[in-house]
Amino acid sequence: MNQKTQQNAGAIRHALSTKRADDFAQWYQEVIAEAEMAEESGVRGCMVIRPWGYGIWERIQRLMDDRIKAAGVANCYFPLFIPLSYFAKEADHVEGFAKEMAVVTHHRLIAGEKGGLIPDPEAKLEEPLIVRPTSETVIGAAMARWVQSWRDLPMLTNQWANVVRWEMRTRMFLRTSEFLWQEGHTAHADREDAMAETLRALEMYRDFAETELAMPVVAGEKPENERFPGAVGTWSIEAMMQDGKALQAGTSHYLGTGFAQASGIQYQDKEGAQQYAHTTSWGVSTRLIGGLIMTHGDDDGLRVPPMVAPHQIVVLPMLRDTPEDEPLLAYCAELTKALSGLTAFGEPLRVLLDKRPGKATQKRWAWVKKGVPLVLEIGGRDAAGGQVSMLRRDRLWNEAAKANFVGMAKDDFVACVVTELQDLQASLYAEAKARRDAQITSIASFDELVAFFAEDKRYPGWAAVQWSRPTGEELDAVVQKLKALKLTIRNSPLDAAPVDGDCLFTGAPAVERIFVARSY
Amino acid sequence: MNQKTQQNAGAIRHALSTKRADDFAQWYQEVIAEAEMAEESGVRGCMVIRPWGYGIWERIQRLMDDRIKAAGVANCYFPLFIPLSYFAKEADHVEGFAKEMAVVTHHRLIAGEKGGLIPDPEAKLEEPLIVRPTSETVIGAAMARWVQSWRDLPMLTNQWANVVRWEMRTRMFLRTSEFLWQEGHTAHADREDAMAETLRALEMYRDFAETELAMPVVAGEKPENERFPGAVGTWSIEAMMQDGKALQAGTSHYLGTGFAQASGIQYQDKEGAQQYAHTTSWGVSTRLIGGLIMTHGDDDGLRVPPMVAPHQIVVLPMLRDTPEDEPLLAYCAELTKALSGLTAFGEPLRVLLDKRPGKATQKRWAWVKKGVPLVLEIGGRDAAGGQVSMLRRDRLWNEAAKANFVGMAKDDFVACVVTELQDLQASLYAEAKARRDAQITSIASFDELVAFFAEDKRYPGWAAVQWSRPTGEELDAVVQKLKALKLTIRNSPLDAAPVDGDCLFTGAPAVERIFVARSY
Repeated sequence: MNQKTQQNAGAIRHALSTKRADDFAQWYQEVIAEAEMAEESGVRGCMVIRPWGYGIWERIQRLMDDRIKAAGVANCYFPLFIPLSYFAKEADHVEGFAKEMAVVTHHRLIAGEKGGLIPDPEAKLEEPLIVRPTSETVIGAAMARWVQSWRDLPMLTNQWANVVRWEMRTRMFLRTSEFLWQEGHTAHADREDAMAETLRALEMYRDFAETELAMPVVAGEKPENERFPGAVGTWSIEAMMQDGKALQAGTSHYLGTGFAQASGIQYQDKEGAQQYAHTTSWGVSTRLIGGLIMTHGDDDGLRVPPMVAPHQIVVLPMLRDTPEDEPLLAYCAELTKALSGLTAFGEPLRVLLDKRPGKATQKRWAWVKKGVPLVLEIGGRDAAGGQVSMLRRDRLWNEAAKANFVGMAKDDFVACVVTELQDLQASLYAEAKARRDAQITSIASFDELVAFFAEDKRYPGWAAVQWSRPTGEELDAVVQKLKALKLTIRNSPLDAAPVDGDCLFTGAPAVERIFVARSY
Repeated sequence: MNQKTQQNAGAIRHALSTKRADDFAQWYQEVIAEAEMAEESGVRGCMVIRPWGYGIWERIQRLMDDRIKAAGVANCYFPLFIPLSYFAKEADHVEGFAKEMAVVTHHRLIAGEKGGLIPDPEAKLEEPLIVRPTSETVIGAAMARWVQSWRDLPMLTNQWANVVRWEMRTRMFLRTSEFLWQEGHTAHADREDAMAETLRALEMYRDFAETELAMPVVAGEKPENERFPGAVGTWSIEAMMQDGKALQAGTSHYLGTGFAQASGIQYQDKEGAQQYAHTTSWGVSTRLIGGLIMTHGDDDGLRVPPMVAPHQIVVLPMLRDTPEDEPLLAYCAELTKALSGLTAFGEPLRVLLDKRPGKATQKRWAWVKKGVPLVLEIGGRDAAGGQVSMLRRDRLWNEAAKANFVGMAKDDFVACVVTELQDLQASLYAEAKARRDAQITSIASFDELVAFFAEDKRYPGWAAVQWSRPTGEELDAVVQKLKALKLTIRNSPLDAAPVDGDCLFTGAPAVERIFVARSY
């Protein structure tokens, strides 16, 4: 390293004005704004998802949908509106959801006496309609029609839809009144088959999060107090954000026969007897995009794993509004075409030739903030010499604190680009996993837990503890003690080692390992 | 033809119980039920779209989305809820839509005094929210933020979404309270550019309807009285159903600067002056599926054009629950794999191997009713001899009134299958176009028009007439006269021949050709 480089080292001028270490929440909002992913809509609690954010969602949809279809699940579409009476059929369910729903009461507006429009009193609905917060009840009603015999089982359905939960405090992608998701709903002959489906969906989510999103997660069972309203058991994948908090990134529920009884999903078994089906439901939502940001973002914006990047490569000609632009553009177009003919991760490469007017440097930083995996900046001299200049999003800065462009022959780039993308995908995962694993601490006593989270550490991470899995009032007491520390139980990992100690809360012999953490 | 064949001719036992000629409306419902496309949901005016219907919608989405993206339009997502005040900004718009909207007034339920749940009076919204019937106003509010300078134009956005219009009389796929659609919304610097976009979208729809859906349509301008509320001009594609009625299958609107003024979409032009943008909107919906059914369905169910068929080929092994099933299944699996490796219409063939238990004959007729283009029934002898037996959906019956299976060597089938599918796609279009063209009658006087539609013809089709394009009260009088005959003006075709007569209604020299018809 020469002297000049040493002087400059550490003087990186990052693309964002807020650093993660300074204000993580503010940084999160800034990434979303600067990467043009979403914005407040002016409609309470609802966001506008802009093309870059929606493009990532389209990638998630496409890849998750492939997995869902491969599992033999059929996509359908069910009504947005759920009659109040449907909703009220399952007591725990309505108890859990009734607090936060959008209620349609009228079907027409008329001119009000004070001017303006008001809901027409003549057009009041006899029965209010709920805007679906989740669709177990309305899909249950359909399944009750479709399922007659054991031959109809398993019945495997899914829908991609918008849902509404009236949230008091919202945060883009993480908690919005309206969000987009998929909800799988399945009916089975018995507990065993339904449980297998619950865990199949969970494993699908785990593998998707880790493979496509490069986001390490823990798959495990939620404690009793965190179950989906009406469920017999709820499983989740939990991801650790860079501030050490946990994000529940997907859930899968075994619903027993409760919803089947509420909706009348009955079948004739092989012996001719009527049985209630065992049902499941499972979902992931636009929340995954929030997880993506807080897993992979850095002080220069988002970093999108290549598998879900709307554009994996942006080709950026350095246009000068001179006649030399013509051969430069021809060179870039040919390069774009050559790259688009390649295959990575089983799909054609997604390459954008950015010919818009404007300075290449400005455009470069806009793409950096959006997190495009590879940016190729091409000048007239590169074009003449058959060269490219590559900027890899996870190796953004060189030792001189400058954009870390790597020059190479175009043909060499074409030959190595797929490997570069695979390596970037793997690197993002490895980096996130190393950070996550380093921020998990085994803790053996409650005092130690208090001290651990009371320490003046910004990002304590997760505590790995053992417990006796108390229920009822005993569990409530644990939950309250944790709540006072702003902590929650995340889940009990499926792949945990056997227990070897006592319960952190009750002192009784432990039966399970769990993670305790702050969370979103 | 031998004697036996002659005796049987005409004795076809169709798969549906209702024939188109006997009761077209009932036939339509029966196709939807028997092809398992959709059903009533129990929620007023909302349908459940079942896997086969949704699979066709997914195909439409995928192919239309490719066209939308290729035109440089970016997908976004905007809120489901529109504050009443947004909606009221454009006077004609609110006038046109206020009659039929779902209004959200509360965000919580509580236990009522008489038991059960009621909307919580404490949780009444200050401003009611409308469930979007269309999104011009809420997208306009976003565009007002995004558009600053002429450099930001054109701004081209689209969303795939559900919308709600409270309909009193509903019909599956054609008119439901909730439906699925795409809505394109664009902003431009001037009228010329906005009009070009309006007509580009219209042409995209025309070509999509005729190419992908094999459904001939007329692209043209709607009369003034049929304009979208708030639009300066509305264009449509109109398809003729088999009962001679017209179906408006897609629309494209030039909105002038009215919505830009209402939402504040302003830009600084090259001279530094503030200008209002000119906007457009355009959409197609799940209604296209209704059009598909009534264009291509026959007395045996639906016929799906191969380009939009979820499965283009179903391989149906004739299983007997004997050890011979094993080589039969192996043969079918190999055939399925070979076929799946082929490409038709620029995509891999979509082939299903139907291994479900059940009689092959029953399964065959289920697929026939669903309209799968090609069914291959394979028995043990076929497998042993390297043969297949093909049933092409548009050549269902032979002269002996039996299912028209054509036997051939497997390799010959693999060699010709792409051509068969292309031919089927073209045949469906040609058949529909010939029928449509034969049902268009040029009519020169109003008396003749009355007589034409008064005749005891079940399916008179469309009247092609010339008119002077009256406006205001004069147009109202025409609309009322037509209404008395249950007729409407469909559109004025873009590709019409020059006028050469007088107006059918006013007697003045004609300025335009239009179609007059009964409609959905």
